[in-house]
Amino acid sequence: MTAIEQAFQHARRIALVDATKAVVSWDEQTKMPTAAGAYRAEQLTFLSGLKHQKETDAAYGELLAKASEEVEALDPKSDEVASVRWLRRDFERATKLPQSLVEALTKNSVTGQQAWIEARKQDRFEMLQPFLERTIELKREYAEAVGYGECMYDALLDEFEPGERTGRVRDVFRALRDGLVPLLQAIVGSDKQPRTDVLKARYAIDKQREIGMLAASRFGFDFEHGRLDITTHPFCTTLGPKDVRLTTRYDEDFFSSAFFGTIHEAGHGMYEQGLRDDWYGLPPGRACSMAIHESQSRLWENSVARSRAFWNHFFPEVRERFSDSVKECDADGFYRAVNAVQPSLIRVEADEVTYNLHIIIRFELEQAMIDGELAVADLPEAWNEKYRDFLGIEPPNNSDGVLQDIHWSIGYLGYFPTYALGNLYAAQFLEQADADLGGLDAQFERGKFDPLKDWLHKKIHTRGQCVTAADLVQEVAGQPLSEQPLLRGLQAKYSDLYGITV
Amino acid sequence: MTAIEQAFQHARRIALVDATKAVVSWDEQTKMPTAAGAYRAEQLTFLSGLKHQKETDAAYGELLAKASEEVEALDPKSDEVASVRWLRRDFERATKLPQSLVEALTKNSVTGQQAWIEARKQDRFEMLQPFLERTIELKREYAEAVGYGECMYDALLDEFEPGERTGRVRDVFRALRDGLVPLLQAIVGSDKQPRTDVLKARYAIDKQREIGMLAASRFGFDFEHGRLDITTHPFCTTLGPKDVRLTTRYDEDFFSSAFFGTIHEAGHGMYEQGLRDDWYGLPPGRACSMAIHESQSRLWENSVARSRAFWNHFFPEVRERFSDSVKECDADGFYRAVNAVQPSLIRVEADEVTYNLHIIIRFELEQAMIDGELAVADLPEAWNEKYRDFLGIEPPNNSDGVLQDIHWSIGYLGYFPTYALGNLYAAQFLEQADADLGGLDAQFERGKFDPLKDWLHKKIHTRGQCVTAADLVQEVAGQPLSEQPLLRGLQAKYSDLYGITV
Repeated sequence: MTAIEQAFQHARRIALVDATKAVVSWDEQTKMPTAAGAYRAEQLTFLSGLKHQKETDAAYGELLAKASEEVEALDPKSDEVASVRWLRRDFERATKLPQSLVEALTKNSVTGQQAWIEARKQDRFEMLQPFLERTIELKREYAEAVGYGECMYDALLDEFEPGERTGRVRDVFRALRDGLVPLLQAIVGSDKQPRTDVLKARYAIDKQREIGMLAASRFGFDFEHGRLDITTHPFCTTLGPKDVRLTTRYDEDFFSSAFFGTIHEAGHGMYEQGLRDDWYGLPPGRACSMAIHESQSRLWENSVARSRAFWNHFFPEVRERFSDSVKECDADGFYRAVNAVQPSLIRVEADEVTYNLHIIIRFELEQAMIDGELAVADLPEAWNEKYRDFLGIEPPNNSDGVLQDIHWSIGYLGYFPTYALGNLYAAQFLEQADADLGGLDAQFERGKFDPLKDWLHKKIHTRGQCVTAADLVQEVAGQPLSEQPLLRGLQAKYSDLYGITV
Repeated sequence: MTAIEQAFQHARRIALVDATKAVVSWDEQTKMPTAAGAYRAEQLTFLSGLKHQKETDAAYGELLAKASEEVEALDPKSDEVASVRWLRRDFERATKLPQSLVEALTKNSVTGQQAWIEARKQDRFEMLQPFLERTIELKREYAEAVGYGECMYDALLDEFEPGERTGRVRDVFRALRDGLVPLLQAIVGSDKQPRTDVLKARYAIDKQREIGMLAASRFGFDFEHGRLDITTHPFCTTLGPKDVRLTTRYDEDFFSSAFFGTIHEAGHGMYEQGLRDDWYGLPPGRACSMAIHESQSRLWENSVARSRAFWNHFFPEVRERFSDSVKECDADGFYRAVNAVQPSLIRVEADEVTYNLHIIIRFELEQAMIDGELAVADLPEAWNEKYRDFLGIEPPNNSDGVLQDIHWSIGYLGYFPTYALGNLYAAQFLEQADADLGGLDAQFERGKFDPLKDWLHKKIHTRGQCVTAADLVQEVAGQPLSEQPLLRGLQAKYSDLYGITV
């Protein structure tokens, strides 16, 4: 075997351990009796340790060094060359981190999460503060260890968005914000507000499950290679090739939560199902970045499942199953209801327009903390100020303000921006797909989603991790990351819905 | 740390890998999309390899040798001493087997199972024959490798029943058979045959699930530390402390299958839940033997859930849920129906009386093959002859005869006798419990199952693997393995049910 083949074999073994961890973790979150949590944590710790050991194995490093020589003889654009480049990057990142730092981060994330739960319950930010201060300190150490370009935050961003730069994200987010704030003001000031009471009628859970799966199947999620279960916090995880698990949660008195949640996770799931099985666990068979992943979930959730064309096609399915609940509503009314915009405090309940503002606030705050411009002690005040500034509202307490998200408590910094980047990429991809495929709306009206799915599969899914997100959007949409397509799309859609001019 | 502590730590790590394998395997059998099977097999093979590597680690062997010296200073009856003794036995067994033999057995079991599926479908024994011949050959090699006492079959038996002897099992089984055959003849010849049509009415599956869980809960299975799912082949597996998973299958037109299946698995589950958590993965926290495990499932399934006293208590629950299906039946009629005896071809559908005859047939045949007294080619004829002889019936084809069970095709030899040994032990335990607790029937009539459960917990569950099954029955019931209590119990019960004298 060549060094390339041996290195690939080892990388596949790492992926196998990771997939095993995913099985064990999925079970913990969906099926395990709560009382069994302590031992399950031991199992997960063991598997994480095993994975880390394999990721940092010195012999593997030598193989990768040899493989890097071997690939010089190959086509620089081949999957093999890209794979060796990415695997070396993974190896170097993993080996640059001192074991003591890895352990300190893990420990702080476990204790931080416990502190967060309690702090949120008691509405006392000061209970979380010391852990968050420690997180910032450790993340700065992390950035020093792995290295960075212009600023420390680059190193954190790079973990989720390989190659992305803080400066570029900041510029695009500012332009996005400058477009969204006046749009939001016009919407809020409009006389034409949609009725949303139809969404708060009674929706039997078994029928909600059925209709969510029906829509996901029509879009192209393959339930023969996956399944859907219930969890408090919805997610999508891959347990191996041909095994993609979605979860959602149901509220019997609210239609949107489970339906759009299911479509969102199915969007992630279709990306995972579209990855190349023959390269499973290697860069050509891995997702490009978190933002590209999010672009797929957002695209199906918002651009497709919240479009007028989709509801013209799909509303009869709702009426068939929930005739009583929607009896005073038609496709147009339902479309308007699921697109109502309202500035609110809670990110996960936010609509398409305000959602990105929630993200930009978090991005600016976490970046300021990492760069030493904002002290953790001043975070709650900074948070509230930004909510007044961006959304015109102010949290009445910290539980519904700065304490609402789990992310910072578990050490996820650099993650939030991927949500909004996903929205930006989704809009860029959709504009291009619409041009390439000759008008998607007419297809959606007829219940035809295959052309879009196949386009995404060919252009994005099968490209895997062989390109950066930045290169991918250039390649697919012929332009760099930009706020313009998203702003154009939202302006067009909401001008019509709210009868405003922007 | 002492060598004892270090050895225990390593043994706990082996158990953790095994428990992880159990999670991955449970998911495969209950939730996994079928298409994901190939990769899942890779995951399981990886975990098996990891486990084997840890089990045969030379450094672990040295630790156990040192630990054996350390325990000389301890109380010979302590858990530590028993643990070291058993762990050394495990280690020696694992290291005595050449890797080539382990691999040959695994491979033959995989290909053998495929051949069995096809052979059974086509009713062609000759398709399985070469694999079975190879199995016998490999099992003889296995016996030579691990060593044995009086006969090779001892080595196979020892894998499931540590310390058990073929000769003793043969003697007890002969005596059992000599008691069962005339009992069965009397039953078959009786004029008083029960009606069983009530069991074949319509039983909605959700209600079946509910009533099965209700009975299991009343007996003492703790659903806070376990769960119940659906599989084609019911089983019970433990994924870690406080996490015992049962499965069952439902037939909408037959009551007994799921109900008694659920109770059977819950009996196994209560044993697992009763093991000592603080010794999880070490001999004091492990089940004693397969037969003792089976004694727990059979005891709850047959001695409790098929008793008149239980149905006097529980029949109202059936009537409440299935009023239409049981409207022409009362507690006594239901009790009679669930205890109908009928010689039949299929082991897994057999009643309490004939079941052991199915087992004795298999035991005698597999032992004869291992000892070279029976050629695989002659197996179908020998099988049919024994069915005529023991049960008075003859299979019309091999699919419902010698090909009905999966066991031999996957290399399970020495396993079948544990089913009947379990029935023998169950009867011995029950007789003693009845004496100790002052009449169980009166307690069952009042829905009181705690005394029996607590008795089993104290006398059997918490003893773990620190004693052999032979020592345990002597300790608990004050007598060696015997056919007498089982025969006494069956004779009393069926004399009454069928109006016969035996």
